[in-house]
Amino acid sequence: MDFIDSMLSEIVAAHDKSSSMDTKYPDYLPDKDEVETIIKLSRRLLFPGYFDENGGNGTDTVSNLSDILKELEGTLQCQICRALNLETGENKDCGDMYGNAGVICRAFMKKIPSIIEVLLTDVQAAFDGDPAASSRHEIIFAYPGIFAISVYRLAHELYLLKVPYIPRMMTEYAHSQTGIDIHPGADIDSHFFIDHGTGIVIGETTEIGAHVKLYQGVTLGALSTRGGQSLKGIKRHPTLEEGVTVYSGATILGGDTVIGKGCVLGGNVFITQSIPAGTRVNLKNHEMDYSELGVRS
Amino acid sequence: MDFIDSMLSEIVAAHDKSSSMDTKYPDYLPDKDEVETIIKLSRRLLFPGYFDENGGNGTDTVSNLSDILKELEGTLQCQICRALNLETGENKDCGDMYGNAGVICRAFMKKIPSIIEVLLTDVQAAFDGDPAASSRHEIIFAYPGIFAISVYRLAHELYLLKVPYIPRMMTEYAHSQTGIDIHPGADIDSHFFIDHGTGIVIGETTEIGAHVKLYQGVTLGALSTRGGQSLKGIKRHPTLEEGVTVYSGATILGGDTVIGKGCVLGGNVFITQSIPAGTRVNLKNHEMDYSELGVRS
Amino acid sequence: MDFIDSMLSEIVAAHDKSSSMDTKYPDYLPDKDEVETIIKLSRRLLFPGYFDENGGNGTDTVSNLSDILKELEGTLQCQICRALNLETGENKDCGDMYGNAGVICRAFMKKIPSIIEVLLTDVQAAFDGDPAASSRHEIIFAYPGIFAISVYRLAHELYLLKVPYIPRMMTEYAHSQTGIDIHPGADIDSHFFIDHGTGIVIGETTEIGAHVKLYQGVTLGALSTRGGQSLKGIKRHPTLEEGVTVYSGATILGGDTVIGKGCVLGGNVFITQSIPAGTRVNLKNHEMDYSELGVRS
Repeated sequence: MDFIDSMLSEIVAAHDKSSSMDTKYPDYLPDKDEVETIIKLSRRLLFPGYFDENGGNGTDTVSNLSDILKELEGTLQCQICRALNLETGENKDCGDMYGNAGVICRAFMKKIPSIIEVLLTDVQAAFDGDPAASSRHEIIFAYPGIFAISVYRLAHELYLLKVPYIPRMMTEYAHSQTGIDIHPGADIDSHFFIDHGTGIVIGETTEIGAHVKLYQGVTLGALSTRGGQSLKGIKRHPTLEEGVTVYSGATILGGDTVIGKGCVLGGNVFITQSIPAGTRVNLKNHEMDYSELGVRS
Repeated sequence: MDFIDSMLSEIVAAHDKSSSMDTKYPDYLPDKDEVETIIKLSRRLLFPGYFDENGGNGTDTVSNLSDILKELEGTLQCQICRALNLETGENKDCGDMYGNAGVICRAFMKKIPSIIEVLLTDVQAAFDGDPAASSRHEIIFAYPGIFAISVYRLAHELYLLKVPYIPRMMTEYAHSQTGIDIHPGADIDSHFFIDHGTGIVIGETTEIGAHVKLYQGVTLGALSTRGGQSLKGIKRHPTLEEGVTVYSGATILGGDTVIGKGCVLGGNVFITQSIPAGTRVNLKNHEMDYSELGVRS
Repeated sequence: MDFIDSMLSEIVAAHDKSSSMDTKYPDYLPDKDEVETIIKLSRRLLFPGYFDENGGNGTDTVSNLSDILKELEGTLQCQICRALNLETGENKDCGDMYGNAGVICRAFMKKIPSIIEVLLTDVQAAFDGDPAASSRHEIIFAYPGIFAISVYRLAHELYLLKVPYIPRMMTEYAHSQTGIDIHPGADIDSHFFIDHGTGIVIGETTEIGAHVKLYQGVTLGALSTRGGQSLKGIKRHPTLEEGVTVYSGATILGGDTVIGKGCVLGGNVFITQSIPAGTRVNLKNHEMDYSELGVRS
């Protein structure tokens, strides 16, 4: 037996040893590239003219938005279909689920106008909150926070429609592009501003009110996940009420933790209990040793 | 009215509701893909042979650098032109601005030799500072820090030439690739070394002296941005003098904060005031509770 | 002399000023795009069906795995050859090293079945540890942690075979996609789970036992790298024994630091000494100032 044949046998044997896998060699999975296409088409509907295929050459005028809508519907319906099939353990392309996928797809598309309205409040919040922003244009086409929020707002609607797999694939795409990890299950109100953003984690059952501002490295997480799958569906991430600001590197944990209206949480604070509205929280015992250095090597 | 037509009307209506947007459906914006091309062409001039199109097959010799220079000039002039038009509110391709864009473009290109010289000091600083570095080659083609610094040094020259949009688009491209967010306005001297780098944020008015070393997760930021647009142009980020080392997760805030020559700031420190030269700063009251665990579930 | 010619001379002169560079205008370097291809082909062997070229259309069945194996062998042998040539200072494509590269390439390929077996334990650990995981499918095709671990496990085998450059290029590709920076030299046992992951740094001489769980922003690093190149090869990163959990933002430094079996390290702790088995460590003096805010501007 030659080298390649022998390797092939060993690889197949290695896969066969795994009794825990749901399926081996699955067909017709939701496709990462198509999910990226769904994001890119949607973004051209959200902010027409900013993400044209031909280098901003004015192709995305009102007249061609209907072509984008049709392309989005075709692509999304097929991927929803695959995701539904995979969830039911049917390893096939479309089949019986196709009609059902179409109904879900249109229900999602009907949400796009309201997503546009709330995203425009997010753009405004970024402009109002960042002295380095030169215009709303710059925020739309250069700010990673707006990209991550856009993808989250799209994915969240699919999550509410109980589409499996696709919403998480969408937010993980944004995560890979921005370092911002927003679970599609999170519930986030308008005027949401993320500055810089790398390292932000927002868990599945987080609730965030209007006019909240988060800096890089903020974790809105669970206190413990030792319960694993038994914790599924339980609220395990915090609630941030209206107007909360959280500075870089702060960690807020727990499903019972409520950060009251207007609170300002300083950099690197570590919070596992509720904070009353209108409170400023800063590190207190962040004392440091200061010593003289010798000649630097 | 069919589904697509009805969606189209609702989407257009949603965009029309936004009175705050500067322009709707803009044409001829600066193009993200072309900005990426500008970075890739420039990088082949900075480090010839390392980033050839054909897989390092020796196409980037001295003889073809002039072709790269010509391609860079054409692409950059067009994008500068679009950026200038957008800033003045003219929604068009090139027009009257084209000559002006050409002058700026050549002024930028004249800076490339000095950018090369300073980048070679950055490569040397990485080699001297990292025991895991096997050669300068590896630093040039594998280290994300050198990539982020290269893009910053190019973007900074365009920023000094007052080109709108393009510099920030360039550094945001590097941010998406590396997790390192250096604002093009920052002023950074030679022998700059970033190790690992993910999560670093360097604000617009930061000043950094020669031989500075930053680890992952370091923030050089503003104390507060509540003033929003009213703070534009004011120095709101810190100054790090020559030879400063900042370990991972440290946060240094404020425009009046000066970290003196040779200081070493330990991991996770949080600094909002000036530190005299030659000081080592470590966390002091980083005390911890130690308790015994039961059997691990 | 026209502008382009004059720029060319200045650029060449800038490169010539650098006496420190090992080689200028190198040919036949290892190629980033080909290294990405190696990762993508390998991943189709590790998880057949999940990362098909044609959108998960069932092309990666057992029958075509042998084609993937052949393509992988050809691509990898060539890149190993280039890396070996570069290390010896020979600036050429394949030549005498080709046979040697082939032997190393096959030694690597023989490790793939055992990599598959250990990766399936990593998938299981993610499923058991994350309440938000809906199935093992989702973990394989959407979780950045599994991607970073897969690339690390492949790169580590090449590192053990003393292949220069390629292993680090592989893990830096994963770093750019996920924000997770695992040095190929680290030694990591089975059932390894990384949740979210952005900002994680795992140094070259780190040792990690089975069933370890790391959250985003964790650094497993060196105490000081002031010694630079003189520290090469010395153990300077920590050891985590079996069953250790490390929450977000924790920093663990030093080659003599051993975190004992089953320890749980809380968020943001900063550890530079060994911790006995079965200990829980939390921040103690993380006290905070609470003050009332006036009306929020």
